[in-house]
Amino acid sequence: MDVSIIGGSGYGGGELLRLLLQHSGVRVKQVIGRSSAGLPVTRFHPNLRGLTSLVLEDPEALQPCDLLFTSLPNGKSMFGMPDWMRTAPRVIDLGADFRLDREQDWIEWYTPPHARPELLERFIYAVPEIHRERITAAERIACPGCEAIVSILALYPLLEQNLIRPDRIIIDAKMSSSQAGRSPSPASHHPERTGAVRSYQPVGHRHTIEIERCLEEYAPGVRVDISATAVEMVRGLLVTIHAEPRIKDIGEKTVWQAYRRAYREAPFIRIIKQRRGLYRFPEPKLLQGTNFCDIGFAVDPRGGRLVVIGAIDNLVKGTAGNAVQCMNLMAGFPENTGLGFPGLHPV
Amino acid sequence: MDVSIIGGSGYGGGELLRLLLQHSGVRVKQVIGRSSAGLPVTRFHPNLRGLTSLVLEDPEALQPCDLLFTSLPNGKSMFGMPDWMRTAPRVIDLGADFRLDREQDWIEWYTPPHARPELLERFIYAVPEIHRERITAAERIACPGCEAIVSILALYPLLEQNLIRPDRIIIDAKMSSSQAGRSPSPASHHPERTGAVRSYQPVGHRHTIEIERCLEEYAPGVRVDISATAVEMVRGLLVTIHAEPRIKDIGEKTVWQAYRRAYREAPFIRIIKQRRGLYRFPEPKLLQGTNFCDIGFAVDPRGGRLVVIGAIDNLVKGTAGNAVQCMNLMAGFPENTGLGFPGLHPV
Amino acid sequence: MDVSIIGGSGYGGGELLRLLLQHSGVRVKQVIGRSSAGLPVTRFHPNLRGLTSLVLEDPEALQPCDLLFTSLPNGKSMFGMPDWMRTAPRVIDLGADFRLDREQDWIEWYTPPHARPELLERFIYAVPEIHRERITAAERIACPGCEAIVSILALYPLLEQNLIRPDRIIIDAKMSSSQAGRSPSPASHHPERTGAVRSYQPVGHRHTIEIERCLEEYAPGVRVDISATAVEMVRGLLVTIHAEPRIKDIGEKTVWQAYRRAYREAPFIRIIKQRRGLYRFPEPKLLQGTNFCDIGFAVDPRGGRLVVIGAIDNLVKGTAGNAVQCMNLMAGFPENTGLGFPGLHPV
Amino acid sequence: MDVSIIGGSGYGGGELLRLLLQHSGVRVKQVIGRSSAGLPVTRFHPNLRGLTSLVLEDPEALQPCDLLFTSLPNGKSMFGMPDWMRTAPRVIDLGADFRLDREQDWIEWYTPPHARPELLERFIYAVPEIHRERITAAERIACPGCEAIVSILALYPLLEQNLIRPDRIIIDAKMSSSQAGRSPSPASHHPERTGAVRSYQPVGHRHTIEIERCLEEYAPGVRVDISATAVEMVRGLLVTIHAEPRIKDIGEKTVWQAYRRAYREAPFIRIIKQRRGLYRFPEPKLLQGTNFCDIGFAVDPRGGRLVVIGAIDNLVKGTAGNAVQCMNLMAGFPENTGLGFPGLHPV
Repeated sequence: MDVSIIGGSGYGGGELLRLLLQHSGVRVKQVIGRSSAGLPVTRFHPNLRGLTSLVLEDPEALQPCDLLFTSLPNGKSMFGMPDWMRTAPRVIDLGADFRLDREQDWIEWYTPPHARPELLERFIYAVPEIHRERITAAERIACPGCEAIVSILALYPLLEQNLIRPDRIIIDAKMSSSQAGRSPSPASHHPERTGAVRSYQPVGHRHTIEIERCLEEYAPGVRVDISATAVEMVRGLLVTIHAEPRIKDIGEKTVWQAYRRAYREAPFIRIIKQRRGLYRFPEPKLLQGTNFCDIGFAVDPRGGRLVVIGAIDNLVKGTAGNAVQCMNLMAGFPENTGLGFPGLHPV
Repeated sequence: MDVSIIGGSGYGGGELLRLLLQHSGVRVKQVIGRSSAGLPVTRFHPNLRGLTSLVLEDPEALQPCDLLFTSLPNGKSMFGMPDWMRTAPRVIDLGADFRLDREQDWIEWYTPPHARPELLERFIYAVPEIHRERITAAERIACPGCEAIVSILALYPLLEQNLIRPDRIIIDAKMSSSQAGRSPSPASHHPERTGAVRSYQPVGHRHTIEIERCLEEYAPGVRVDISATAVEMVRGLLVTIHAEPRIKDIGEKTVWQAYRRAYREAPFIRIIKQRRGLYRFPEPKLLQGTNFCDIGFAVDPRGGRLVVIGAIDNLVKGTAGNAVQCMNLMAGFPENTGLGFPGLHPV
Repeated sequence: MDVSIIGGSGYGGGELLRLLLQHSGVRVKQVIGRSSAGLPVTRFHPNLRGLTSLVLEDPEALQPCDLLFTSLPNGKSMFGMPDWMRTAPRVIDLGADFRLDREQDWIEWYTPPHARPELLERFIYAVPEIHRERITAAERIACPGCEAIVSILALYPLLEQNLIRPDRIIIDAKMSSSQAGRSPSPASHHPERTGAVRSYQPVGHRHTIEIERCLEEYAPGVRVDISATAVEMVRGLLVTIHAEPRIKDIGEKTVWQAYRRAYREAPFIRIIKQRRGLYRFPEPKLLQGTNFCDIGFAVDPRGGRLVVIGAIDNLVKGTAGNAVQCMNLMAGFPENTGLGFPGLHPV
Repeated sequence: MDVSIIGGSGYGGGELLRLLLQHSGVRVKQVIGRSSAGLPVTRFHPNLRGLTSLVLEDPEALQPCDLLFTSLPNGKSMFGMPDWMRTAPRVIDLGADFRLDREQDWIEWYTPPHARPELLERFIYAVPEIHRERITAAERIACPGCEAIVSILALYPLLEQNLIRPDRIIIDAKMSSSQAGRSPSPASHHPERTGAVRSYQPVGHRHTIEIERCLEEYAPGVRVDISATAVEMVRGLLVTIHAEPRIKDIGEKTVWQAYRRAYREAPFIRIIKQRRGLYRFPEPKLLQGTNFCDIGFAVDPRGGRLVVIGAIDNLVKGTAGNAVQCMNLMAGFPENTGLGFPGLHPV
């Protein structure tokens, strides 16, 4: 199967390349990068040196392929999408442009207005562990934001099985620097960013709306409140979710069962909850390069509170790995093809 | 004024020494360190090389002094305290042993039982910004835990002025490695700890009880829920506090005024809330070595939520600096004597 | 092919496990860990959760296998080796015990005396890129130290082709924290170790002797001087080698050709030397998890000096990956089987 | 005494401000910052919040003052200097423009040509520990580069007392990110820079020439070769200097005495060399915010080699602190006025 990537010089595009170049079922046909056309992809992704001789190409050079990945900054893919949908029978978009199905949500949370609102309904919002069937049948996929997918995966079983109140959910997210992409800025300047524990978005996080839209199918009226803090980490994302169980003294077993029931056949979800040792709860550090979403939880012995912890690699399960997982479902490959890297320790 | 320190080889003791050696009003008479008696303090605190020739002494060698600081692991100072109270007319304890005034609270949150419950009532729990008068008149002080003091300072004006609900307070704390003290452990081993974002205590944090005991004087029935996550940082502590305003659409001005009213004359509280730039909210990185407690906040435009952010250096405002500030009040020195270091940038 | 590991709870053993569990040609039969017998290996190597249910076993339970890896602290494998050599027809030792062929060298650089000096000659010191034929024919292999192998690989072509003076070689090594192994110590305590740039061994590094013994086959009288500095890094090792070319104005082309000639068929050696961009020279950060040894160099335009830069992941090419590469040669697998991970970026 | 700063928004200017605002003998009259005129200095230096209300001013607004600090990027201060020399009777330049006394050296190592070569001879290159008398009498000072001053201080006693060969000196420098200044770049982008161990300048470092020019007064024909590697550190600089003693078996005592003799009265030089413990050699981590230059050494027991280790905070002793120390000498203040901060531990 021939696949191409639009937006190959960014971190998301590079991670896609790493995964696809080692995927047994596909051939990477073209990598498009407008401002860097003509340069080898290894100029941007030095980890791929010796693995590929692909060269970034101009958007105009795009040829038909079986599946097209678009990995562009928010607000960019909407313009080219009509053309690209003609170029490839299947499209997987990694940006935010087609995640929301209602135009007014886009207007409220993003600017400027959406250029192609009529296309919004033609994309499937894709969390493979929840929307497996839809994805398998889909032609156009919108991959969730990294902060959204880990929160959704952590909350879905609890909401769907009616274990927590849908109106008292606080997501305290610890974010890494790669989430801001490849472009240097004062906020990413090393002397300022390293060692920072910085409240860069205490309220108003854009992923709020896609989490709510996804989950309200299972929990009408759900509201989530996100606070995001940047910490010292290049890859990875941890959410600490503060929830209120419907039953004050909810048992740990009940929670365990909810996750088991929901994710029994999900190859990338691990429930991490141990009594002893260092690795009792999910940790993003251990997930670098992997497609896992690790989930753990703790019940407050004083009652009335359930803390859920979710961790991913924002560039893999949060972006490129999830996209490859969706492609596997769409193309009929085993779900974990090309996604077997178990992660490093120590690291 | 002659002061001595019991527990001079740990991180808290070292920070006390740094501050006291440069304090214009005191002389450090003795530094006690049982297991390291005979060694120069600079063996443990290399930053003091060239500044002092003090040598750690055996507890038996302790002589009378004007004020005694005790800086020992939790559960240790209770045993020597009766003797030490005879050695010095004023005692400032930096550990947890005398922070709670009710024996049953100690039993519930700490183990084993308290060795000297009859002394609990004789110590003043000391947040200078709230208890200035009590401290000025006190002979025995129990300094708050680092996580407690920053949470208390962030919450007190809002609770005391009745702006938030006392029963919906979640404290998401981001913790540094120096909080665990000087002894190596598997959890502090560099390959495991560096770059970690680790939920080491999602529920059940011991500082819960001292925060509630302190605040219920101003907000009966207050309940706080703490989740603590270790992040990459040696010094520093940030709390993200998720609160529910009593009025759904609370204005930013109202919150500002509450803090101004409460802390108008507090030299170490700064309200940090800017519209632009990198440093819009409090950051522990900028506070290393300083006695500041920086506080900021954000009102959710969707309503119903107020996020408060507090930052300190856990070894200064969270431990040794707060103790020196208390000493200044007790001894009649200007409150900020010896605490003028403004912090470094970049760092 | 059945392989077993002695010393499965350490970082080297864990990395071996990661590589062997995904190796298409072998089955991991047993993992021995004396002090942790009975515990699952995932207790120590959380990255392997979901990948294996192996449990650490007692040394007495060791059964015959086709190839045995021993991964123990220096000075430990010499005691069991006579037994183990009977248990398995092939042994690969990852420690220092059998790296030196002369007993007096061991005595001079290590303590206490060697317990089995008669076995020293029966092990092959194994740098696959130099000793390919010997390794292919070998039954017992001693893998080089991590600092040794990167230095040897960087120097060998220059010495063997007589381009630099063998008596003016300074190796300035930048070391990571995983090199010190899994046991916590004051030096590895996070508040002390993180952000450190610490001259922990300016002279007298033990790898000196194995580098000299290996290289003097090609450059009689070679002497190397190592200074080792610990820097902030969990995995990885960079050497900056300061050498003096025999011809004052040696050309870059000459140096290029020397490396090309030596490593034309070496799948894990990459010559990294670019004019522009960030990734002009080898960087350990990009090699985490990979078996590459990247080598670069710079000729001083003032003449008289050649700087060579070598980088590896100390746990892969510096330990477990090199061992697997040796196994591949010994067992007739393609040299890079199981070693294809290209590394991550950014990370 | 009234002092002003030209170039107040950069890291060097901020550090100057921190030191001068707390200096008992001076008043900061103006801070000039062309592109940010009108903004408070705390916008750039958040550590100074609450300490000053100074506002950056346009260069045209510069008024006469007693002493002027110029802290601009290399190649910028040469243009304004003729004017500024009329504005203030004393000028201390922190950049490279006036460090070299010979125009041809500037041309060879910097570009473009020097705009004011006739002024080169009118500046004193200022290492207070070596040039105390010249500085005391000087009106115009050029402060050394950070990498130069630590190397000069480490080498001067050995060369001046003829203990090492002047033609075999290799300086392996470990550099921090603040040395590259305040402007973001791909090289300073956090995901790329954090955790890096990057050979950014293996040959051709510009500080070579100022080190040689300074030291050849004491050691004719001296040649130094610098290789610079960026490591994970915001502030700080460590040099590992590989030297060849004139006597093969030079004793440690001889080296000690050389340093003692040279620096007996130097308040900011500490010789750090201990047999035990973590802090045996100089470490930049411990020097953050201080004006110390710590120097240590090791003699190779095999003979023929002396390793010298020097550490500073590049922004203090490497830039702003050294400038204040020079000002103190020029103005007759005690040498360590305003420079008493001992540093933090742990940090």
